[in-house]
Amino acid sequence: MNNLSPTDDALARRKRVLAPTYRLFYEEPVHIVRGEGVWLYDSAGRPYLDAYNNVPVVGHCHPKVVGRLVKQASILNTHTRYITDSPIELAERLLATMPRELTSVTFTCTGSESNDLAVRISKVATGRTGFIVTDSAYHGTTETLSRMSPVTGQALGSDVFTVAAPVGETNTTGFGARVRQCIEKMRAAGIEPAALLVDTIFGSDGVASHPAGFLAEAVKEIHAAGGLFIADEVQPGFGRTGINMWGFQRHGVIPDLVTMGKPMGNGHPIAALVARPEVMNEFAQAHRYFNTFGGNTVACEVGLAVLDVIEQEGLMANAQQMGELLQQGLRSLASTHSVLGEVRGAGLFIGVQVESREAAARIVNGLRRAGVLIGSAGRNVDVLKIRPPLTIARAEVEVLLDQLGKVLRSEARTPAGRR
Amino acid sequence: MNNLSPTDDALARRKRVLAPTYRLFYEEPVHIVRGEGVWLYDSAGRPYLDAYNNVPVVGHCHPKVVGRLVKQASILNTHTRYITDSPIELAERLLATMPRELTSVTFTCTGSESNDLAVRISKVATGRTGFIVTDSAYHGTTETLSRMSPVTGQALGSDVFTVAAPVGETNTTGFGARVRQCIEKMRAAGIEPAALLVDTIFGSDGVASHPAGFLAEAVKEIHAAGGLFIADEVQPGFGRTGINMWGFQRHGVIPDLVTMGKPMGNGHPIAALVARPEVMNEFAQAHRYFNTFGGNTVACEVGLAVLDVIEQEGLMANAQQMGELLQQGLRSLASTHSVLGEVRGAGLFIGVQVESREAAARIVNGLRRAGVLIGSAGRNVDVLKIRPPLTIARAEVEVLLDQLGKVLRSEARTPAGRR
Repeated sequence: MNNLSPTDDALARRKRVLAPTYRLFYEEPVHIVRGEGVWLYDSAGRPYLDAYNNVPVVGHCHPKVVGRLVKQASILNTHTRYITDSPIELAERLLATMPRELTSVTFTCTGSESNDLAVRISKVATGRTGFIVTDSAYHGTTETLSRMSPVTGQALGSDVFTVAAPVGETNTTGFGARVRQCIEKMRAAGIEPAALLVDTIFGSDGVASHPAGFLAEAVKEIHAAGGLFIADEVQPGFGRTGINMWGFQRHGVIPDLVTMGKPMGNGHPIAALVARPEVMNEFAQAHRYFNTFGGNTVACEVGLAVLDVIEQEGLMANAQQMGELLQQGLRSLASTHSVLGEVRGAGLFIGVQVESREAAARIVNGLRRAGVLIGSAGRNVDVLKIRPPLTIARAEVEVLLDQLGKVLRSEARTPAGRR
Repeated sequence: MNNLSPTDDALARRKRVLAPTYRLFYEEPVHIVRGEGVWLYDSAGRPYLDAYNNVPVVGHCHPKVVGRLVKQASILNTHTRYITDSPIELAERLLATMPRELTSVTFTCTGSESNDLAVRISKVATGRTGFIVTDSAYHGTTETLSRMSPVTGQALGSDVFTVAAPVGETNTTGFGARVRQCIEKMRAAGIEPAALLVDTIFGSDGVASHPAGFLAEAVKEIHAAGGLFIADEVQPGFGRTGINMWGFQRHGVIPDLVTMGKPMGNGHPIAALVARPEVMNEFAQAHRYFNTFGGNTVACEVGLAVLDVIEQEGLMANAQQMGELLQQGLRSLASTHSVLGEVRGAGLFIGVQVESREAAARIVNGLRRAGVLIGSAGRNVDVLKIRPPLTIARAEVEVLLDQLGKVLRSEARTPAGRR
């Protein structure tokens, strides 16, 4: 017997059995036991407004998603080496949201698996090895992707080159020019560019959303150099950026490969890669690809339920409206609290520049104490990352803004020496 | 309107939307719509005895696994950056099945992610780059693992060396000697060995099961050379080999890293890596590891349900008993049908040597027509791969043997010219 609280007991046991590579959010970690809609509840029954997690895109434990999961899990869960209907239906539904140039779907289990496969395909299709990513990019956990994810601090691959993301820039051509210079630098080192790989909302770089269209120049440059454009939609995809289903659509570009994951199953592990047929055919001439759980019947039915809910509940429109309301409120707070700077974002993928990393951490932890969950991002970890479920309502946006206002007023009263 | 059958319609749509890298099993693919226990059912309602899939280890759609999935999916599905109880409980339960030297659990979503992480960890922990795998090994789909999976036909990494698996050998020291020679060859090329990575039942090599203990010498050699031993338990793990929970236990060895996946969630995407703490600590000094869906509450509850069912239904004992019955029957058939050779395996992971690749394909397709699903494996694709759910009963083993007997008698009657 011990006298530890449930949370302290869980923490002690966690430390004993989980690897030391695990990290918890917040100075005072949250012990979550239940989720519903935009709310998470801790072991003491306290509610937290989830304004961080972009995985439960239609809200935690959405009954329609759970219902379809339950139904299919009771009927069949098998793989794609038999003919099953669910992956075909989901592939058709996904392609209907894409430009008609993209016609070929491959299912995986995680955004990492999709991005890793996109890298393999790009190398085979182009016969080249060079990749361009942004300088605080994050693209996944595999060995290959960890060497293309500078935000992790790991050494990059020798064929991986970086460009600064257009965070807080106002002209449309700077990013394209940097990509062109990067291609020249790469070629000077004797490496030919296979692909430009970017998160189309640049989340881990600190959110780069405007002016919409700035990606077009960069895509033109990589295509002119004979390389491919991979749109990493793992974070911005599935309507989060508001008017569009996919982040790349805001920029009027057509990718060669699109990867998606996180929100695709509202928490159920499912991900995918969508490709132009000519690119995929090159790869298929030399390689097969089988993913045991990828495209299984249960995961695909869950993916279909998520698409249904986004459509039936008008969540893209809601993301757009609530996103505007939230950004407006954030700009209003920034106008009276100098610790906040630029508010960036599209729909419900929002980044707020903070004057320092320390201030951002204080705000994030202050909000957690106030019952609102957000996170931080960016090269200097000085950007507030705000991404509630797309189902968030006006009253909940107001809760977020009210609590942030309180935290900012408390921050303003904190003596500089204690910051 | 078209007049295609549901199966032909599905095939045509599938070809249109799924990537050309997809492959279907069998000359005449099976259109599966339902699964229950050891049986799968096609769109015409015809039952198939599933003697192939090692993922649904406790049987398709097991009510206890589905029940726990349903319950947790309705309560909470979130990640490991909050404290949640389910991953802690599952890690404790997994460690209870392991040698006490292994104390550190990391959750991922797929066997590929676990093996890819094991490779990353081995490189960091040893400061070396060399890997030894068997010459028809399969370890996963990531770029890194595709270069360590010779069975796919892809070019191996320059630091990846192969040894022949001890398929059909009868002495305990041959494999260890080959590993030693491989280490010498690697060192002659200026590469130091980071790890020996093997599937402990050598499934894709054509099944190497006996004499139990032959791995010990190889593990001794890699340890003597300062490298690690990674036990890939993605296929043999979770009681499939009968008396033991893990394939490496049959050999009396203690791995440095253990990877697992496929059967862990009975089809739900969940996988893990278990490590000696000193190895994991080396990695953790330089790296974090976060996997969005890895260790989520729903996946972990499903994993707990699978462990419960294996224990409560005595499935390891059943795997041992039914495995012996099945192997006995297969040996009896082999004694009267010269097309069959050696019967190998442990528990319900069984390989049967066939005289040629063509004969193996005819038997596999003949059984499919007869309503029994098996597969083939091995360097020459001339080994029948038989791995039914661990819940298989005596009557179902007899169905398999009866149908195989019929297929073999028909094979014997086929004129040589038509084979």
